[in-house]
Amino acid sequence: MAVYTDISEDQLADFIRRYDVGTVLSFKGIAEGVENSNFLLVTDRQPLILTLYEKRVDPNDLPFFIGLMEHLAARGISCPTPIRDIDGTALGTLAGKPAAMVSFLQGMSVRKPRREHCAAVGEALARLHIAAADFPLKRKNALSVAGWTELVKAVADRADTVSPGLRQTILDEVMALGQAWPFGLPGGVIHADLFPDNVFFLGERLSGVIDFYFACNDMFAYDLAICINAWCFEPDFALNVTKAKALLDGYHRVRTLAPEEIAALPLLARGAALRFLLTRLYDWLSVPPGALVTPKNPLEYLAKLRFHRSAADASAYGFTA
Amino acid sequence: MAVYTDISEDQLADFIRRYDVGTVLSFKGIAEGVENSNFLLVTDRQPLILTLYEKRVDPNDLPFFIGLMEHLAARGISCPTPIRDIDGTALGTLAGKPAAMVSFLQGMSVRKPRREHCAAVGEALARLHIAAADFPLKRKNALSVAGWTELVKAVADRADTVSPGLRQTILDEVMALGQAWPFGLPGGVIHADLFPDNVFFLGERLSGVIDFYFACNDMFAYDLAICINAWCFEPDFALNVTKAKALLDGYHRVRTLAPEEIAALPLLARGAALRFLLTRLYDWLSVPPGALVTPKNPLEYLAKLRFHRSAADASAYGFTA
Repeated sequence: MAVYTDISEDQLADFIRRYDVGTVLSFKGIAEGVENSNFLLVTDRQPLILTLYEKRVDPNDLPFFIGLMEHLAARGISCPTPIRDIDGTALGTLAGKPAAMVSFLQGMSVRKPRREHCAAVGEALARLHIAAADFPLKRKNALSVAGWTELVKAVADRADTVSPGLRQTILDEVMALGQAWPFGLPGGVIHADLFPDNVFFLGERLSGVIDFYFACNDMFAYDLAICINAWCFEPDFALNVTKAKALLDGYHRVRTLAPEEIAALPLLARGAALRFLLTRLYDWLSVPPGALVTPKNPLEYLAKLRFHRSAADASAYGFTA
Repeated sequence: MAVYTDISEDQLADFIRRYDVGTVLSFKGIAEGVENSNFLLVTDRQPLILTLYEKRVDPNDLPFFIGLMEHLAARGISCPTPIRDIDGTALGTLAGKPAAMVSFLQGMSVRKPRREHCAAVGEALARLHIAAADFPLKRKNALSVAGWTELVKAVADRADTVSPGLRQTILDEVMALGQAWPFGLPGGVIHADLFPDNVFFLGERLSGVIDFYFACNDMFAYDLAICINAWCFEPDFALNVTKAKALLDGYHRVRTLAPEEIAALPLLARGAALRFLLTRLYDWLSVPPGALVTPKNPLEYLAKLRFHRSAADASAYGFTA
C-alpha cells in the first residue's frame, strides 16, 4: 500500500498537459507497490497508472526500468507500457519527483496460486527473458552475493533477537553461497521480484506482469529460483512439488534450461531465499516499535532456505529435463 | 489511505456471484476513506467501489448509511449508489466483514479549493439537506455536544503535551458551548464530514459527494458550519472571507437560511472546530510513537476555533441575508 505524496489538482494538470491522453475524469491513490506512490488516472480515453518515484528508487535507474517496460511491451509482453509526452519523453516530473504514466493492465493478482498459475508464470518468465535479450541497457543486481554482505553487516548483530541462532545461520550461508555461487550460467535481464503481487490473471490466463523496479542483469535461472520461493510454498512453508514442477516445466517449454542451470537450481533457490530473508530481516529490524505497518515476517524465508539446503538436485522440485 | 483487509480471489468470487455486475477485470485497493477498506473493482460492464466495513463502523449503522445513499441517489444527488444483490439486499458479507458495492463516481477531490468550488459545495449541501428530508431512518450525532464530554475525558489530561494551555481551552469551550448550544434550529439528515476529500469535481463542476459514514440527524446549519471550517480557511489558518461568502451564498440560494440559523453561525462554527479539534487530538494522542502514519495536526482547529470565537455575527463570514 503506497501513496507517499499528495498531488494537487494544479500539479496534476501541469503534468498531464504534456501528454496527449485526453481529459482527466478520475484520480485515485492505489494500494500497489511499496517503493513508489501509484495512482489510477482515468481519462475520457483510457485508464492509466501514474507512478511517482519516491526516494527508495535511484533516479539513475529509471531509464533502465522505463526503457525495459517499453522494450518488452513492444515485443508483445503484457506489461505496463510507458506513455511518452509530446516531446517523446516517458519520464517526467510531478510534485518535484520523477514520474511516469503507464498503460493500465487488466487482471488481478492471486493470493492462493494454483498449479495452473505457476505453469503460466514459468512460461511468462521465460518469454520475458527471451524478449529482453536485445535490450541495450544494463543494471547490476544490487541484491546478489556482493550486496548480501552489506545487508548482513546491517542485520547480523540483531538477528538473534528475531530467532535464536539466526545470526550464525546467516553468516554460514553467506560464506557457503559466496564460495559456491555459479557465476557463469546463461543470463540477461531478469525481473528479480516476480511475486504473486506482481502478476495479474484473468481466471487462469496470465494477463500481465508489473513492477519492474528490481529488474537487473543476472542469471536467468536465479530469476526462476526466486519464483520457486515466491509461488511454490504452502502457507506452512512446505514446498508444493506439483506447483514447482509446473513452474519449471512451464519455463522449460518456452526456454530450454541447460543441464548446468538445472544442476544449480537448489543452490540458486537457497541464494534467493537468503536474499529475501536478509531484506525482510532488514525491514523488520528497521520498523519503529508500534508502527501501524507490519513488515513481512522474515522467518518464512528461513524455513524455505532450510528446504533448499536439503534439496539434492532439481528433482526435489519435481523437475526432470 | 486504507486497505486493512486482504481479499483472496475465492472470497471475491463468492461475494460477486450474488450480484449481477458482470465479470471482474480488475481489483485494486484504493487510498480513499480512513475508517474502511476500499477497492476499485472493474467489471466488463462498469467500474465499482467495494467497501469493507472495518471495526470502527458500528454494523447497526450500516442500514442508515446505505439506505441514505440509495435515497439520495434516487433523488438525483450525485453520490455512490449501492448495488443490490440478486435478493435485493445491498449489504453483504466479505471476508467475514460487512461489505457493499456502490457505483463509481467520476471526478477528483480538490486540494486547494477556490471560490467557485466553495459556492458549488454550499449549493450541493443544501440540495442534500432537502433531498434527505423524507429519509425515514434516524441516526444520532455521536460527535455533537453530548459526545464531546467523552472525548474530553480521553484527551484532557494529555492535551497540554500538544500545546500548553490546551487543556483549559478545551474545558472552557465545552462548558461555554454546552450552555449556549442552539438545539432548536431547523434540522434533518446532515453529511457531517463534507471535507474536500469527500467532494469530487470535474473542473469547477461538482460531480459527486462521497463518504456518508458520519451522516446523522442534526441541525442543517451545523453541517454548513463544518463546511466553513473544512473549505474556507487558508493554509495559514486565516479565514478566506470570499470563500466563506461563496459557500454561504451558495447554500442560501438553494435553501433559504432562517434568521436564527444565520445568527447561530459563529457559535456553530466554533462547535464544529471544537469537534474536529477533539477527534484529531484523540487520534494524535492514540498513535504509537514512531508510527508510519502521521495523524492530522489538531492545532489547525485550535486556530480556527479562535477565529470563530472572535466572530461577532455572520458578517465575519462575509454573509448578509
